[in-house]
This record gives sequence, C-alpha cells and structure tokens, in this order.
Amino acid sequence: MSLQDKFSRLGTDNAPGQEVRQNTGELRDLMRGNIVAGKLVDFSHGDVDAFTPTPRSFELFADGVRRGGRQAYTEYRGASAIREGLADKLAAFTGAPIDAVNGTILTPGTQGALFLAVASTVARGDKVAIVQPDYFANRKLVEFFEGEMVPVRLDYMKSDRESGLDLGQLEDAFRQGARVFVFSNPNNPAGAVYSKNEIRQIADLAGKYGVTVIADQLYSRLRYADGAYTHLRASGIDPGNIITIMGPSKTESLSGYRLGVAFGAPELIGRMEKLQAIVSLRAAGYSQAVLQTWFSEPEGWMDERIRLHQIIRDDLLKVLRAAKGIEARTPQAGSYLFPRLPDLAIGAADFVRILRLQANVIVTPGSEFGPHSANSVRLNFSQDRAAAVAAVKRLVEIVERYRA
Amino acid sequence: MSLQDKFSRLGTDNAPGQEVRQNTGELRDLMRGNIVAGKLVDFSHGDVDAFTPTPRSFELFADGVRRGGRQAYTEYRGASAIREGLADKLAAFTGAPIDAVNGTILTPGTQGALFLAVASTVARGDKVAIVQPDYFANRKLVEFFEGEMVPVRLDYMKSDRESGLDLGQLEDAFRQGARVFVFSNPNNPAGAVYSKNEIRQIADLAGKYGVTVIADQLYSRLRYADGAYTHLRASGIDPGNIITIMGPSKTESLSGYRLGVAFGAPELIGRMEKLQAIVSLRAAGYSQAVLQTWFSEPEGWMDERIRLHQIIRDDLLKVLRAAKGIEARTPQAGSYLFPRLPDLAIGAADFVRILRLQANVIVTPGSEFGPHSANSVRLNFSQDRAAAVAAVKRLVEIVERYRA
Repeated sequence: MSLQDKFSRLGTDNAPGQEVRQNTGELRDLMRGNIVAGKLVDFSHGDVDAFTPTPRSFELFADGVRRGGRQAYTEYRGASAIREGLADKLAAFTGAPIDAVNGTILTPGTQGALFLAVASTVARGDKVAIVQPDYFANRKLVEFFEGEMVPVRLDYMKSDRESGLDLGQLEDAFRQGARVFVFSNPNNPAGAVYSKNEIRQIADLAGKYGVTVIADQLYSRLRYADGAYTHLRASGIDPGNIITIMGPSKTESLSGYRLGVAFGAPELIGRMEKLQAIVSLRAAGYSQAVLQTWFSEPEGWMDERIRLHQIIRDDLLKVLRAAKGIEARTPQAGSYLFPRLPDLAIGAADFVRILRLQANVIVTPGSEFGPHSANSVRLNFSQDRAAAVAAVKRLVEIVERYRA
Repeated sequence: MSLQDKFSRLGTDNAPGQEVRQNTGELRDLMRGNIVAGKLVDFSHGDVDAFTPTPRSFELFADGVRRGGRQAYTEYRGASAIREGLADKLAAFTGAPIDAVNGTILTPGTQGALFLAVASTVARGDKVAIVQPDYFANRKLVEFFEGEMVPVRLDYMKSDRESGLDLGQLEDAFRQGARVFVFSNPNNPAGAVYSKNEIRQIADLAGKYGVTVIADQLYSRLRYADGAYTHLRASGIDPGNIITIMGPSKTESLSGYRLGVAFGAPELIGRMEKLQAIVSLRAAGYSQAVLQTWFSEPEGWMDERIRLHQIIRDDLLKVLRAAKGIEARTPQAGSYLFPRLPDLAIGAADFVRILRLQANVIVTPGSEFGPHSANSVRLNFSQDRAAAVAAVKRLVEIVERYRA
C-alpha cells in the first residue's frame, strides 16, 4: 500500500475535536431555518470543567516537578514505584494478579497503549477481529499495520443486560484465522457492558483458537446502579494472551495529563516498551506522578461522580426517547449515548456539521465507529447537566427540522 | 518480517535509562579491582536537577491546568494559539517562513515527532539514507517501518569546523534510490555541526534527486563560541521536501513535560497529525502551555546556560585528552561528548556495564549509534560540573584498569 493510500484512509476530519479544521462553506445551501441559540456543548469529549480532575492530581504533578530528574527520566515503561503501586490496585480491581515489574507499562494516554498493543500483535496480513460498532481507532490501527479486519457484529439495541456481541461471528472470525481480537468494554460508543456469560465465552474461544485479546476497559470504573462487570483477564483466559488497557482520562477527567496503562502478558508488554522507546520515549515523567491519585480518590468521590453521571444519562435519555423515531440504549457504564436517528433529508455527515453550525452542538458521527451506524451519533454526556439537556433538546429540534 | 524478528531488532537494553533492567550477574568474573567510589553520574541524559527547567515553565503549566478543558482538549496537532506563537519564533530562529495553521504540529517529545515524520515518509522497502553515527532511533525507525537503510559515513574526527559527512556517499545513496534522508544537526552523538557548505550541498542534492529530508535540530540552540549554524530549511531546499524537528527537552531541561514540535511541508504535517490521532492523540494538553516559555526565556538566561555548558565541556575534554589513547572531538554545539576509547581487554558492552557497577558512572555505548563506533561512549555533559569531572576521572581510571 502506498503511503498516500495509507494516510488517505487515516481520516481525522470527523474525529472529536477536529471540527475546527473543517471547511463548511458548501453547507449553506442545505440549511433550513435559523440558528437555535444556546450555549455550545461539545459532546465529542467530556467537559473537564464540569467534572473536574481528581482531587490532589495537580498537587501530585507539582510534587513530581519538585522531585526533578528522578521523575522526569523514568524507565520507558514508567517509574517502577508508580507501576508497583498501580499493579496492586489494578489487580484488586480486575480480580487477577499483575506482574508489576514485567507486566505493566505507562503510556501517553490509553490511545498510546492501544497503539503499542496493536503494533505488538498485528503484522501485515494478520486477521484481526474487530467489533462493529467500536472505538474508531481500533479499525484505523489495524489498517495502519496492514492487518485484515474481520468484523463482528454488536447488536447493542437488543438488550440492556448484555452487549449483544454475535458470538457465532466471533468464532467464525477465529476459525477463519483471526489471531487478535480488540474490543472495548464497556463498548465505545454504545455504553454496552459485556455480560458474565459473554466474557466467559470470549475467554473460552480465545483459549480454543489461541487468540490474543486486547481489552480496552477505559470506562470500566464508571458503572451505574446494578452494573455488573466481568473482567476478561480474571475469567479463565490464558494470562499470556491478554493485554488490558485502562487510564484516568475519562471518569477521572485527567486527559490533560495524557496517561494510560497497559497490563498483562510480560512478553507483549516488553514489545510495547521497546516500541514506546522510538514512539514517544515514555508517558510524560511529571504526569506519571498523577497516577498516584488513581484508585486512591477520596472516600465517596467516585460514587458521587457516578451518581451525577447517572442523573444526566437519564435526563438525556428522557429527552431523546420523547422524540419520534429516536432510539437509544441505556448504557450500563461509561458516559456515552449512541442514539439512532430517524431518516433525514440530509446526509448523516451534513447533519452533524449543520447541528454544530445551527445549534452549537458538537457530536461525533456514527460512521466513525463502523459501517452500520451512520444513522447514529455519539454523545459524551460527561457535561454540565443543564447545558447538556438544553443541547439535546436543540439536537431534537434540528432532527425535526430535517426529518425526511 | 515476523513480529518476533521485528521486535528482537528493537533492543532497548542499552538505551539510556534502561540500565535498571539489565541482568549483570555474569560480569563478576570479568571484574578487576575494587569499587572506585564517587557520586553517581548518569551521563545517559542531562541532569535536570543541575540545569533546571526554564523559568516560569511550571507556572505556565499551572495556568494551563487552570484554563481547564480548553487546554486539555486541543486539536491533535496542538493548540492553535500556541502553534501560532511558536511559528513566528521558529521562523525567526531558522530563517524561513512557517505555515502556522498547516505546517506545524506539537508532539510528545521530539521522539514523537521523529516517529511520525518517518512513518509519514517511509514505506516498506523504501531506501532511507542514515548517517553513521547518528541518533539510534533513526535506524530503529527505518527498521520498524521495514525501510532499507543506506548508510552514509560521518568522519566527525576529521575537523572541528564541519561535520565530516561523506557527501559523495550521500549522493551515491540518493542515486541508488534513497528518497528520504534523516539526520541530526548538531549530530547526536558527536556534537558535530554541519558547515554552511555541507548544508548547501545537502540542499542541492535533495533538490536534484527529489529527496525528503527530516532534520532533527534538537540541540541547535546550544551553540558554543563561534558556533556558526546553518538551517537547512533556509538553504534553498524545496519547502515541500523538508520537516524540521526541535523541542525543549534538552537545553531547556523540559523533558519531564514531553514536548516536541515538527514544522515544514504541510502535506507531511497533515499525515503526521492523522497518525498522531491513533498513536497518542496529542502532546499532553497542559504541557503544551509550557511551550510559551520557549524562545521567550529571560534575557541572558540562554547565554548563561551555554557559558556554563562550555566550561564543563572544556573541563571534561581536558581530563579525557590527558589519558593515553582517548580521542575526542570538540563539539561545537549540544551537550554530548563522544570519546573514542583505546583497545580494552573486555568487550565494549561489558566495559559500559562494569563502569556503572565499579565507578557509578553511566554512559551510552557507542554501538547504539552505528556499527563503526563500538569503541566510543556517549556522555551527556549537562551535569553538575564537579560531579561530572570526578566521574570522567573515574571513567579514565577504569579505562586504565582494563586496557588491553
């Protein structure tokens, strides 16, 4: 594949935060009606001014700066003391042991971990099972490394108690030769959590076919009432065949520090470190110190954060479901809603741009997450409650205006 | 190439800062004599406790945190206001205009920029001209992307007034089909600065053969007395065929924030941003704010920093040159010394490990930088002056002890 082809497939025009680079001149001809005034809400990512970073995060960063060289220059995989502390907490959280010395790596965001994990497992021509819909980078990473994507359907509208993964398709993918499976749990964009039964079956199938699994559990702490969660790494899977990825960018609002962590199979973590040495060297040394707040938040802080997100989730679902033809699953975890819109008189991409220009509402187009979800949009509802409710009302108004 | 082969070539055992992961048990049999006591000096990187970060860097970071979401979530290529400010300063410094909107990208360190630049220009099987010796990641990046390295010799011992690049070999490389040339100026590890004549010839050859050049100018601000410096991007090269990389991690001691910048050809910068979106998303948002200190340091601050480094450089050169058989070039810029050691009774890799164990001195083995410099070691002399002088005296003592 030529570099030109390769990079033309790596489009970021519709990626979160990139709207400012779009040319929107040609949309004027399609527009109906006037501006629907309201405060800008950018649902493409969480609002860290509404849900602020973990208490003491900045103080720990400042301590890191004061520590100087020891904190600035760590091993490429991250400061060993910080990784040790994390390994204990993450083992307790996920329910299976972690090799702190050889089985952990700190990365610049979970994006960094995902990149390194895919690079360490997918060679040119390798088949990789990818869920549709799922986080857009999964597909792009497989394409970048010239792997072959084998799609597996997620029927996330079927039930609110499981993810809806088509396990028959997953086994077909493995039978066809997929050697790597990348998926997010809770699913990004749908907020679907994989049931205990689904996770057990994924573990069994991975074992049966010798598949390496990259489990992106970025949102696995933000779980709503009765939100059972099963960690794949503690479900009987071969520990040498799984990498789990987490990070404090979302629920904990620490995205500005760019921190992620991957843990699991030492051989793969070793590869990831070697690659990180030529990709970015290490997660920013001073930022690493902030990870000391993680899983050590003040008593009750996380519960309160979850409670507030659940209120917003329910507010927005009520507004969306009151509109004719808008369908939405109740997410059991995370801060994404992924409503499916009714048929519109304009294309899905134009709708998203017009929504921004006419209603001051930014959402991420569903087409980013897979080929079958172009009629959906993703909203990160980690926002100011009142502003988010008003913005979703404007979204509904724009839907009405452009209804087919 | 299998992933196993690929990653086995990406060794980091001897990379700076990775010493803690080495198994050194088998060295005991080789050792002669006792410990030479002295304070640990880690010459594998600069000591940011001896030369502290730019004034106001932390305050600007803190302002970034206070700014909240706007600073945490920037475009993938970095906050536009910060890139605009930088473009003006970097254009003034390098002597050629910069397209702030489309021709700049902020990255997690210059390592991040180098990775993205090579990924954006080198496809599988592409020939890439690489200087020997040069920064070790250049070679590793070409190998990772399965390009074919065409080596070009740098005879850095020949003169202190030019780099000693073999321009005949460079043209041969281009004639053989190399379409990309990656090099550092000043050279890492030798501290050699390319003369005006050399840079002009590189520009001419790149134009003649349509070669894209990635110029790593990380150390181009730390120039000693009479240190003339010629910027390739202002030397008649096609602006569409050059990416220049700089960053504040070294001279300015801001490595703990992980910041770099690449500027030049908009098409290539566009590719780099697309790739960054799946590699690390962006340079840490809050860290980006620190770049406002860059090229805006207090009056006289940089001059004083250069003056102090020159004193240490000259101190260390005096100690090294007093030892029989140690040769060293005077670096015109940067903070690296790359002395060539006499023949020893132990292998070069063992010498480096023994030096650490017996003398508390960490250096980077010359073999990291190319196949012809195994008898050299690299020292980053951005250190406490007295500690560095004492450490180099211990290095000389260990050389004497193991002389062949």
